Amino acid sequence: MTFHPPHFDPEHFRWAYDGDNGVATITLSRPKKKNPLTFDSYAELRDTFRALVTNRDVRSIILSGDEGNFCSGGDVHEIIGPLTRMSMPELLAFTRMTGDLVRAMRACPQPIIASIEGVCAGAGAILAMASDLRVAHPEARTAFLFSRVGLSGADMGACAILPRLIGHGRAADLLYTGRAMSASEGHDWGFYQRVDEDPLAVATDLACQIATGPAFAHSMTKRQLDMEWAVAIDTALEMEAQAQAICMATNDFTRAFEAFSAKQKPEFKGD
Amino acid sequence: MTFHPPHFDPEHFRWAYDGDNGVATITLSRPKKKNPLTFDSYAELRDTFRALVTNRDVRSIILSGDEGNFCSGGDVHEIIGPLTRMSMPELLAFTRMTGDLVRAMRACPQPIIASIEGVCAGAGAILAMASDLRVAHPEARTAFLFSRVGLSGADMGACAILPRLIGHGRAADLLYTGRAMSASEGHDWGFYQRVDEDPLAVATDLACQIATGPAFAHSMTKRQLDMEWAVAIDTALEMEAQAQAICMATNDFTRAFEAFSAKQKPEFKGD
Amino acid sequence: MTFHPPHFDPEHFRWAYDGDNGVATITLSRPKKKNPLTFDSYAELRDTFRALVTNRDVRSIILSGDEGNFCSGGDVHEIIGPLTRMSMPELLAFTRMTGDLVRAMRACPQPIIASIEGVCAGAGAILAMASDLRVAHPEARTAFLFSRVGLSGADMGACAILPRLIGHGRAADLLYTGRAMSASEGHDWGFYQRVDEDPLAVATDLACQIATGPAFAHSMTKRQLDMEWAVAIDTALEMEAQAQAICMATNDFTRAFEAFSAKQKPEFKGD
Repeated sequence: MTFHPPHFDPEHFRWAYDGDNGVATITLSRPKKKNPLTFDSYAELRDTFRALVTNRDVRSIILSGDEGNFCSGGDVHEIIGPLTRMSMPELLAFTRMTGDLVRAMRACPQPIIASIEGVCAGAGAILAMASDLRVAHPEARTAFLFSRVGLSGADMGACAILPRLIGHGRAADLLYTGRAMSASEGHDWGFYQRVDEDPLAVATDLACQIATGPAFAHSMTKRQLDMEWAVAIDTALEMEAQAQAICMATNDFTRAFEAFSAKQKPEFKGD
Repeated sequence: MTFHPPHFDPEHFRWAYDGDNGVATITLSRPKKKNPLTFDSYAELRDTFRALVTNRDVRSIILSGDEGNFCSGGDVHEIIGPLTRMSMPELLAFTRMTGDLVRAMRACPQPIIASIEGVCAGAGAILAMASDLRVAHPEARTAFLFSRVGLSGADMGACAILPRLIGHGRAADLLYTGRAMSASEGHDWGFYQRVDEDPLAVATDLACQIATGPAFAHSMTKRQLDMEWAVAIDTALEMEAQAQAICMATNDFTRAFEAFSAKQKPEFKGD
Repeated sequence: MTFHPPHFDPEHFRWAYDGDNGVATITLSRPKKKNPLTFDSYAELRDTFRALVTNRDVRSIILSGDEGNFCSGGDVHEIIGPLTRMSMPELLAFTRMTGDLVRAMRACPQPIIASIEGVCAGAGAILAMASDLRVAHPEARTAFLFSRVGLSGADMGACAILPRLIGHGRAADLLYTGRAMSASEGHDWGFYQRVDEDPLAVATDLACQIATGPAFAHSMTKRQLDMEWAVAIDTALEMEAQAQAICMATNDFTRAFEAFSAKQKPEFKGD
């Protein structure tokens, strides 16, 4: 297949595109401060994920950080300081913007694979949580440390998403105490899908495997996994009957059957 | 207690009934092809579980497969081929029928214990998932491999039920990659409740234990576990106040107290 | 900080208050019968948690039992016997009262840490489940044994809350069979956050750590963790945008930033 490199030239993180596989990589890159987020990088990340909604050349996304750390969260002086001086409408505008970043990550059709090393804290832990799959280095430390700065665990969806990843009791532990979750705990608890000395390599393998799969069907899986959280089983079954019937009408499905009959490997084009 | 053997004479799977314990066993049996499903067997399974709704002689159900495999899922030539040639209304009729099989498994009052060996793939993995309890052989391999044939993970309730069994991240992993879950992973993750060299024996023990328990109360447990997925805690608490008050008005409850007072083992009759 | 000891003088359990830390301890204390519950102790526990809603001097709560056991549940002769002789309105009044105890535990703003030793059965297992965090002794045995007395697992929210703590399959196992969950299983499954030879000491450490944290923000975390169970992700994100904006307007947040800038430890006052 031929992929057309999407045109992104972000200011506040690095963007790379592997045209052979249709895999994009977003790398948070302010390594001296362990890749913190700022008002601008939040907004640019949000806009990037939003733009990817209509991009069919990017079929999976790796989210990573530079020089041995994932992300140290909201920068204390560039974000927390200004927040303490804001009015309520300004505060709500900020928390809505950060929530919109998570919304954009969940709304883009591409599965997002986070590659986690070193520090993964605060809003950084949220970016990991809001991804679809997570790969960690054995020494990665992920902390939802909002309580340490006087805030609640209700940040960017953590009270909704984290319990569904690791269970309600463990989520409560992390959110009340702000303590770091080790890679080993995270793997045992279902937060990390893989732990490896080279998480970026494993994340890249996963991203390539997913990108060569049925992109349209994958986007439906992503949508349904989110939408079916809060509905009755009966409703979910009808939702899936419709979703899967749509996928059965794709050319990818027909090609897969033909390839199987011919004992060949199917090529998925996402149509 | 005396149980009356229910009259089932299915064409597309085997039916056995243990009248001493009130335990029925459904065995998928086309062992040369690893017990695949066909249009007819889907429908007959659905109709069987529907008929069991009003049957009080069957108090628990074992779901198993013949000759070392559980179920290889929808037969490629008998199901996937025809699906590629269907119109949208026909496709939706099919996905609704398969969803109705899961609905029937969830709606029948009897707990269903799946005994899993060897291959457990596609719709087979769904049948395991839609059961109430699962016992696996150590070499069992369960794969939600819909993405391999160009389909989404939104098949027969998988995007709703699987995350609630094993967590959202692990479910995403299995549904995007289509990879097999080992018995050991499945046990660690909460998919399998037991792993044993003889899963059918363990499943039978569990089924007999449940069948000698309070059938009416068990049916309420099954109903409430499903219904309370998508409601607020406050609502759930009122739902349970009503459900348990009903159970406290049963003769089984009174008999249990009397047996306890007399230091005897209670006999549960389901009334 | 100065805490004002709240005035509680319960009849049916012990109450202790550590004014240095703002930690209250409730100890079930009828050790000869392994600390069972009675109609009166249910009601008094409910009223105590309700009274704590407006108490800002109690910032975390330990729930424990006397002499090596947590709680043996509803007393057979004082509760189960009378229930078998009640009319339906009386039964519903009882199940609503027990549900109201769980409601009160979830509605009070203070995180509740259960310290579990020995027997933790029936309604005792529910009290553990309805707490926010759980610490167990290695020999603790927790059993949701309602099915043993002819009742359903739908007791005081178990069909809603237990699956969210340990997954749906494990919850079904415990509720159908009534078998005891070991401390090791409970830890692996996410029911227990810690296992230790001295669970009360560990629970006390956790309670003190939480009590010295941001009480207002913690109360928001507790509220949101419960409320976001049954809403769509999109809704949850807006709920958290509002909840966190409120927390950003607290003095605790400003003080935390100032302490951080001055390289000091923040003092959280809950305002």
